[in-house]
Amino acid sequence: MQNVENYRQSFIKYLDQYVQVRNPKSLYEPISYILNLGGKRIRPILTLMTAEIFGQDYEIALDAALSVEVFHNFSLIHDDIMDDAPLRRSQPTVHEKWDLNTGILSGDAMLIMAYQLFEKYEPKVFRNLAKLFSKTAIQVCEGQQYDIDFETRNDVDISDYLKMIEFKTAVLIGAAMKMGAIIAEVSEQDQNAIYEFGKNLGIAFQLQDDYLDVFGDAATFGKQVGGDIIENKKTYLYLTALNLSSETDKLELLNLYNSSNNKDAKINSVKNLFLNCGADKATLKEIEKHTHHAFSVLNSLNISDDKKTILKQFGQQLMNRSV
Amino acid sequence: MQNVENYRQSFIKYLDQYVQVRNPKSLYEPISYILNLGGKRIRPILTLMTAEIFGQDYEIALDAALSVEVFHNFSLIHDDIMDDAPLRRSQPTVHEKWDLNTGILSGDAMLIMAYQLFEKYEPKVFRNLAKLFSKTAIQVCEGQQYDIDFETRNDVDISDYLKMIEFKTAVLIGAAMKMGAIIAEVSEQDQNAIYEFGKNLGIAFQLQDDYLDVFGDAATFGKQVGGDIIENKKTYLYLTALNLSSETDKLELLNLYNSSNNKDAKINSVKNLFLNCGADKATLKEIEKHTHHAFSVLNSLNISDDKKTILKQFGQQLMNRSV
Repeated sequence: MQNVENYRQSFIKYLDQYVQVRNPKSLYEPISYILNLGGKRIRPILTLMTAEIFGQDYEIALDAALSVEVFHNFSLIHDDIMDDAPLRRSQPTVHEKWDLNTGILSGDAMLIMAYQLFEKYEPKVFRNLAKLFSKTAIQVCEGQQYDIDFETRNDVDISDYLKMIEFKTAVLIGAAMKMGAIIAEVSEQDQNAIYEFGKNLGIAFQLQDDYLDVFGDAATFGKQVGGDIIENKKTYLYLTALNLSSETDKLELLNLYNSSNNKDAKINSVKNLFLNCGADKATLKEIEKHTHHAFSVLNSLNISDDKKTILKQFGQQLMNRSV
Repeated sequence: MQNVENYRQSFIKYLDQYVQVRNPKSLYEPISYILNLGGKRIRPILTLMTAEIFGQDYEIALDAALSVEVFHNFSLIHDDIMDDAPLRRSQPTVHEKWDLNTGILSGDAMLIMAYQLFEKYEPKVFRNLAKLFSKTAIQVCEGQQYDIDFETRNDVDISDYLKMIEFKTAVLIGAAMKMGAIIAEVSEQDQNAIYEFGKNLGIAFQLQDDYLDVFGDAATFGKQVGGDIIENKKTYLYLTALNLSSETDKLELLNLYNSSNNKDAKINSVKNLFLNCGADKATLKEIEKHTHHAFSVLNSLNISDDKKTILKQFGQQLMNRSV
């Protein structure tokens, strides 16, 4: 087995020879740009690692790993347009550096290129990969749509929210791993188990992201603390606080989310309301629940205990944000 | 063999039961809207007809036909955003009726749904359909990008233009037919021949569109005559006129294309310059060339003469715009 850094290096090398700028340059330059912006490459690493865990040469999985990364970056380009985001990984977003039309069209091309990356696999594997990919990609679109809808909806509940993050973020983690399993041609049972592992880890990771957005350390979290509160995001913390708070606190929270007070004061007040009702602890409990579920699924897998330990350790590192 | 009207009715019936609005409604309502706007359904009809021409039950090809139509409508939604178009088939465009984000995301979902429509076919057929689809879809994106680039480029020549319309319009006609051939599992030679037939017919059709935009009858053409001239489009007529005109006429044409004169006067002057140098005749000759090439390819096909006649008649009806 390779270590994570080996997978990352192999992947980046493979990516480098993939992103050649073809004609029309105005279509392919933005694609090369976004794919070269960096990032931790967690998803493709998971595809490679899973293939090898299930006894397949990880290099056979490089095309599928690339497909997942190309799709992920397609979704970043289009999401950045929808969110009107000026920066991505501290660099100008594609629609900022070029323009709206370039962002739309280069994104479209990437979605198609992601499918093309399955073409080297034999028909059955190709079909299984493409089917999983389509199902996942549609869910990612639905998750993004729910996220947009939530901004103006006042009836979002916790199960809506969990479904949204499952679709928008977690299913792609599950699918990245399942692709490795499909390429290793293991049983459907193992394929589904590794998908559950990845998906639950993805949900736990996103919930942790919400938690750290409020209670994290600005130095290590890497994003502005309190960003979700400023944007009035209906996160797990917020929705739980509405459920757990007293009537008075609930009204105060609703008022704060409708106000554009001084930023720091707003963050502080909301944070205290989250703490008062125990929304912080409830969120940590939910994170624990999904992490625990992910790890318990590992037991059912038809692989050696050593390999289960590798997956568990990777999961733990991911949740400690050290990979 | 069915007649064209039968194919159309079968297709529309199949489309109707496909466009059920699922949740999130904000994602799927625009998809149902655009698919129900109408149109002649030429591309899916071609898929059904080709399958039957090659001896396959046309109903087996309904999913592939639907895929082509869903893809075509995806490209309309995204192109309408890029062109800032308010109307499509006399109705508000998706981004006008809803908003930009809806247009982007519903379009993305349609591109994925188009792939999903191949999933009922067995692995080898699925792979062949998806490969052809991806190659075609990427070319359509490239064609759209060339079209955008041409607006600001001053070095566009006739071969650039022919490549642009081939990619933006003609390859999808070719692919729609080839899909019917793939589903009928005929030889690669027949698959490629029917693709050439469709593609060349598509090029001829688009060149005729350019011609009719200037020399057509407003009553029968269905679009505003002179629209391309008002938008300074670098069409086959325009590029040919630059090649064939005297230095004086060429300068006048360039000036007219840089001016925002009175619309009717501009259309009239440009039209006369096209006629003076024989650009009209040259365009008709190019249309004839591609139509002739399309028909000559039919000879090589491994089908009865009756069926060749059906394809030829359909091609002639298409060029006479009576289907």
